[in-house]
Amino acid sequence: MRLSRYFLPILREPPREAEIVSHRLMLRAGMIRQESAGIYAWLPMGLRVLNKISAIVREEQNRSGAIELLMPTIQSADLWRESGRYEAYGKEMLRIEDRHEREMLFGPTNEEMITEIFRAYVRSYRDLPLNLYHIQWKFRDEVRPRFGVMRSREFLMKDAYSFDLDQEGARHSYNKMFAAYLRTFNRLGLTAIPMRADTGPIGGDLSHEFIILASTGESEVFCDKAILDLPVPPADTNFDDAAGLQAIFDAYTTPYAATSEMHDAAAFAQVPSERQVSARGIEVGHIFYFGTKYSAPMKALVAGPDGQERPVHMGSYGIGPSRLVAALIEASHDEAGIVWPDAIAPFNVALLSLKPGDSAVDAACETLYRALSARGVDVLYDDREERPGAKFATADLIGAPWQVLVGPKSLAEGKVELKRRATGERTLASIEDAVAQLTA
Amino acid sequence: MRLSRYFLPILREPPREAEIVSHRLMLRAGMIRQESAGIYAWLPMGLRVLNKISAIVREEQNRSGAIELLMPTIQSADLWRESGRYEAYGKEMLRIEDRHEREMLFGPTNEEMITEIFRAYVRSYRDLPLNLYHIQWKFRDEVRPRFGVMRSREFLMKDAYSFDLDQEGARHSYNKMFAAYLRTFNRLGLTAIPMRADTGPIGGDLSHEFIILASTGESEVFCDKAILDLPVPPADTNFDDAAGLQAIFDAYTTPYAATSEMHDAAAFAQVPSERQVSARGIEVGHIFYFGTKYSAPMKALVAGPDGQERPVHMGSYGIGPSRLVAALIEASHDEAGIVWPDAIAPFNVALLSLKPGDSAVDAACETLYRALSARGVDVLYDDREERPGAKFATADLIGAPWQVLVGPKSLAEGKVELKRRATGERTLASIEDAVAQLTA
Repeated sequence: MRLSRYFLPILREPPREAEIVSHRLMLRAGMIRQESAGIYAWLPMGLRVLNKISAIVREEQNRSGAIELLMPTIQSADLWRESGRYEAYGKEMLRIEDRHEREMLFGPTNEEMITEIFRAYVRSYRDLPLNLYHIQWKFRDEVRPRFGVMRSREFLMKDAYSFDLDQEGARHSYNKMFAAYLRTFNRLGLTAIPMRADTGPIGGDLSHEFIILASTGESEVFCDKAILDLPVPPADTNFDDAAGLQAIFDAYTTPYAATSEMHDAAAFAQVPSERQVSARGIEVGHIFYFGTKYSAPMKALVAGPDGQERPVHMGSYGIGPSRLVAALIEASHDEAGIVWPDAIAPFNVALLSLKPGDSAVDAACETLYRALSARGVDVLYDDREERPGAKFATADLIGAPWQVLVGPKSLAEGKVELKRRATGERTLASIEDAVAQLTA
Repeated sequence: MRLSRYFLPILREPPREAEIVSHRLMLRAGMIRQESAGIYAWLPMGLRVLNKISAIVREEQNRSGAIELLMPTIQSADLWRESGRYEAYGKEMLRIEDRHEREMLFGPTNEEMITEIFRAYVRSYRDLPLNLYHIQWKFRDEVRPRFGVMRSREFLMKDAYSFDLDQEGARHSYNKMFAAYLRTFNRLGLTAIPMRADTGPIGGDLSHEFIILASTGESEVFCDKAILDLPVPPADTNFDDAAGLQAIFDAYTTPYAATSEMHDAAAFAQVPSERQVSARGIEVGHIFYFGTKYSAPMKALVAGPDGQERPVHMGSYGIGPSRLVAALIEASHDEAGIVWPDAIAPFNVALLSLKPGDSAVDAACETLYRALSARGVDVLYDDREERPGAKFATADLIGAPWQVLVGPKSLAEGKVELKRRATGERTLASIEDAVAQLTA
């Protein structure tokens, strides 16, 4: 992408309303714009990150055997009356009346709708296990939305729903998501710790939050350092192997780890003091097993091998890609701006022409731009008529993992400069070597 | 995808409520499920088609230089008061009150919001031209939603918005979209005819609908057959070449073509009778130039080279991917089911095991499934314990362009059978040749 033809509205001044660093940086870097309280437009660079995160989430859901569909945003109130949640959900639910005065709502979550879909088609244990997910915009009418997309009203969520004949099957399904989440966050460049959690208004008796450590995190968490050293399930994990997945679950849930709500100071004191970690955390995922909480009242029944019908056992599994954009920035930034992990950077390379109009510089930039783009590298080519200082500041702010600086002086020696954003380390390389290094 | 692990809820009986063939087939083939009047869930196979259509739309928008962002679904009523459309839009607009009694709405379109984004950041002609688009769910509260996703209330739309300093620039931007739309529909396997259109409530003075011919179309259209033989702009079309794009526009708008609303019987009579086409059509895209209709009241001003500020000239450009799924089926089906064009088929190949459990058949199917998947072919492998007749019917219904039939008899001679869905033509091939042919 040539910056002269892109839409990257950088703000010079840190916006006053932003209380946390990710919100400030997302506004300054032209990633989002607030359209109403807690409602944001995703500007082109913000959308690129959001899409890269969603793609990784999707790949890992698919790997685990979950199947993607897409439910609508607007739901019927009647559906929620079946589960009893229509009245219970309170003011966070955005309630709507259509032109025929039917009561509708903007979905804050989809347990009821997916249960309705399931019961319409599935009757037998032979069609189980089943895990259906979607990545869709949700709305929760927070009384005081804040922190940008970290706690917004309209937000993107991946929510998966598992269906099993019994608790044993449901436990296997739960463990599939548990392992898929460990892989997902690891691929995003995050260390996420599963912590036993309250089940809250969704209900149920087995639930974990996935928490990443960040000094600006919203809540206090406590854990045994041992959990940070556990291996992440590999790409070839066999998700059909119930015992193997249970072993992963057991390994991750044996060391102490708890949010402040579930904290047990006495148990934590048993952890050797050099391994006690007490830190701030950000919740980036939440998984629940809730049995027949929805299937029983909504009559989502399946016949078992014995021919007897019984309510299906369900779980739900959420990750918020829009919130993750902010969480990733909270976990990875410095004074100059964002430092994107390679896997989800909006652009892998910022290519800076330090003297547009100089024919050698222009030619070198074009060569690099074409060669990298042809190899599938996302390049933002800063071809604007701007001073080098402004270009350096923009490149640091938007956080591409690599910068390539092309100026007449080093080019006279046949070199361009490569700068690693995270470390600031700079090296000189020929154009050919630069391409090789950036596509390695 | 192994069908035994997929979620493809085929209906045996044609559903009574469906009045048109695409709606019937989408319900029967397990592509969609109605959740409320005019509101559908996209089941896994339906979502695959929707995503493939959106991907082609996106590629062609990007090729033309348009830049993707993503605006939220929920908008503030105040924004629409600035343009004067809040009252004017009527009951089709889904109006919402949030917990703080602020008036909001579910966006039916985004002229106001994109104008707000533009004016927040862009001040100078040097940042023009600019074309920003998104692919987002919209809501129009139709009084009587019908025809499935052809006229639903919640629907997916790609809407692009162009910004130029003056009418000449805006004409160039309009022609970019005109050419991009010709390419888009052609890649989807459709012949779309641009027809001069009423501008309707969006306003403006230059507008074309893109209409595909289908015997089940909603409206009557008239055109000169010559338009059907015009070349489609190639992939290397230079979108910066204003004269070249104008020539494409002129070539397509010279032969007679009009919807019934704009029909001029006298002019049509001038077309040689053997070239007169009168047919049914389905609208699949709509483009508008509307000048300063929104920028003037909303004060989206840019300074020209003379330093004078003036309202920016705008156009908007819509394609409905969700409606296109239905339109494609209307244009391509037979008595047995859907016949997908190759480019947007949910699965390119239906692989039918005619005797699961037979070790030679199982081995051949596995070999084919792995080889084709590894080469990027989307394969639906029907590995279920079902009679061949049921598998043939399912494969025909869901319309994969190719079927591969693997049975013990032909396999004894080292062959599998390839069937082209559109023609019914069958040929025998070795496994190796089948893979070669299906990945050619």
